[in-house]
Amino acid sequence: MSMELPADSVGYVTPKSLHFDQPLSLDCGRSLPSFDLTYETYGELNADASNAVLVMHALSGNHHAAGYHEGARKPGWWDACIGPGKPIDTNRFFVVCSNNLGGCHGSTGPLSTNPETGRPYGADFPMVTVGDWVRSQARLADRLGIRRWAAVVGGSLGGMQALQWSIDYPERCHAAVIIAAAPSLSAQNIGFNEVARQAIMGDPDFHGGRYAEHGVLPARGLALARMLGHITYLSDDAMGAKFGRGLRNGKLGFAFDVDFEVESYLRYQGKSFVGGFDANTYLLMTKALDYFDPAAAHGDDLAAALARGRTRYLVVSFTSDWRFSPARSRELVRALLDRDRDVVYSEIEAHQGHDAFLMPLPDYASLFSAYMQGVAREVGA
Amino acid sequence: MSMELPADSVGYVTPKSLHFDQPLSLDCGRSLPSFDLTYETYGELNADASNAVLVMHALSGNHHAAGYHEGARKPGWWDACIGPGKPIDTNRFFVVCSNNLGGCHGSTGPLSTNPETGRPYGADFPMVTVGDWVRSQARLADRLGIRRWAAVVGGSLGGMQALQWSIDYPERCHAAVIIAAAPSLSAQNIGFNEVARQAIMGDPDFHGGRYAEHGVLPARGLALARMLGHITYLSDDAMGAKFGRGLRNGKLGFAFDVDFEVESYLRYQGKSFVGGFDANTYLLMTKALDYFDPAAAHGDDLAAALARGRTRYLVVSFTSDWRFSPARSRELVRALLDRDRDVVYSEIEAHQGHDAFLMPLPDYASLFSAYMQGVAREVGA
Repeated sequence: MSMELPADSVGYVTPKSLHFDQPLSLDCGRSLPSFDLTYETYGELNADASNAVLVMHALSGNHHAAGYHEGARKPGWWDACIGPGKPIDTNRFFVVCSNNLGGCHGSTGPLSTNPETGRPYGADFPMVTVGDWVRSQARLADRLGIRRWAAVVGGSLGGMQALQWSIDYPERCHAAVIIAAAPSLSAQNIGFNEVARQAIMGDPDFHGGRYAEHGVLPARGLALARMLGHITYLSDDAMGAKFGRGLRNGKLGFAFDVDFEVESYLRYQGKSFVGGFDANTYLLMTKALDYFDPAAAHGDDLAAALARGRTRYLVVSFTSDWRFSPARSRELVRALLDRDRDVVYSEIEAHQGHDAFLMPLPDYASLFSAYMQGVAREVGA
Repeated sequence: MSMELPADSVGYVTPKSLHFDQPLSLDCGRSLPSFDLTYETYGELNADASNAVLVMHALSGNHHAAGYHEGARKPGWWDACIGPGKPIDTNRFFVVCSNNLGGCHGSTGPLSTNPETGRPYGADFPMVTVGDWVRSQARLADRLGIRRWAAVVGGSLGGMQALQWSIDYPERCHAAVIIAAAPSLSAQNIGFNEVARQAIMGDPDFHGGRYAEHGVLPARGLALARMLGHITYLSDDAMGAKFGRGLRNGKLGFAFDVDFEVESYLRYQGKSFVGGFDANTYLLMTKALDYFDPAAAHGDDLAAALARGRTRYLVVSFTSDWRFSPARSRELVRALLDRDRDVVYSEIEAHQGHDAFLMPLPDYASLFSAYMQGVAREVGA
């Protein structure tokens, strides 16, 4: 039984998977002997493979960026921006989105079998970086016959991958779209990630990451991490507008049960996350965020990191995003301007906080659409 | 062996305690049959008892606001603002600061013996509100012979108590000084408190608050709560200035140990808190914060809550305080102006975040001093 889908949906989609049997060297010094990437595609690759767009996901995302899985009521995480007539217009572009290495939705990660032991990697999965992800995605591009992306695109941690692509493979990126991201995490950002990690690693059911062998999950710790994450994805104003001081049962309980709507919401978000996400993956993703700092290899000079290539950029930030504030996007834009790079920058007025990048806000959608239409014309899509 | 104390210190101080044997009715519907308050005083009460200032503490504070305990190297938590020649000048004022009911530093709280059972209250200690604290402090004022405070003063949760005093006992408050506070918590504020509570209550060593009976402490949960609190007390800029992306060991570890200085700092703050603070008290304090909302009893009209009395106000906020932002102080100031109340308001330029209220920042100290000198003249101190 299929439901009727919106006309601007990419429709029903099925994940695909590719196996890569050449070892992948990782920044941590270890290597993966082989790996799989699970991915989805939307639209059609044109004859000269010039219309391909790589979309990259954020901390808790995956390869399911748009359309519907059979039987699911909710579309992919960026359905607002990917589809016929949407900013990443699948009538013109061929869109690829893969689950990151270290993920828990099909690509090789802590839940996968370690070929050297025959058991799940679990805590033995190597630390992965944004650079590692980009190298693995380049292998995927090779296999799909995509020499050069019309655009590499992402929000938040996905935007960091887009930036890394334009640094590591400038000749393979016509354009880079970097939304609600930052050129590195601040001490505050790292601090929140560390609290999340301590919540997970301090859960007695974590067992040093070997919880699967004990038949348990660090459910409390992972739920706490998610609750905390959620607060940082929303603005104070957005939470005020959504929940205010609304009471769950109309009056104060004078106990430690739920009093306020916002408590109920956060508890629900935490609990429902646990069933669909792996704690070891969460830890890996937060470390990849913390470690991301392309300027570090260039004496902390971001402009120096951006010396090569002619990739053009769209950088977007949102006024109420306090996780990766507009000031952090402006750092990137200044460095690009120092290099005389072609850059469009916009700070979108939005009260939704960091999560704004996922939403079909009119000013954002029309800017994003206009930019991608320009890209389509330039690459002949 | 005593060390030499700064000339502007109130010197060595010793806590005092008073027992109150009349029951205290609480907002939760329960009552305490009797209670103790531990407090300190600095300066001398004058003949007509007109020079008394009540200082109230914040979430993790206590009665030790100024001076030194014998053998201690650090002074009380507000030593920057209390002492000879300091904003709350002990050459003119008699200063009183008590540990709040429900606290863990001497006043009756979860660690105290429940007279009805002969065992520590622990999780059975009743929920206390800002209003309850104010009523208990009024009993203390009665016993000390203080009919009317020259000023009721506090920062953060302490400022909320000062506001509540001016609402519940306007005739007993000449002035109210409300610093880095808010007329109620936002949904975001409540959200952070709820994450802290879930961290504590979800710790397997919490045992429903009866951890003492099990001979354990919910150390992990309390440390997490403190780590999270610390992030909200500092601004992103202040954390950037203090830690930046500085590495603990000069390079990335590619493991889940400490990489960044900020992680080391937060872990240390969490661990060292556990030895000196009670988890049940932490829970009570966060709920008192969440419940504070003097406008609620007046149809959410804060100006209506401020209808009575002639207390004059000093309201201070700090530009980088995102826990209780200047906008929240302005809400209070607007309500006071609606009532034609005598109010001085200043938004102090400071990069330190919420913690700025504890620091001897020149603009802040000089404004605070000038205001308190005016109060001293008015009350004949």
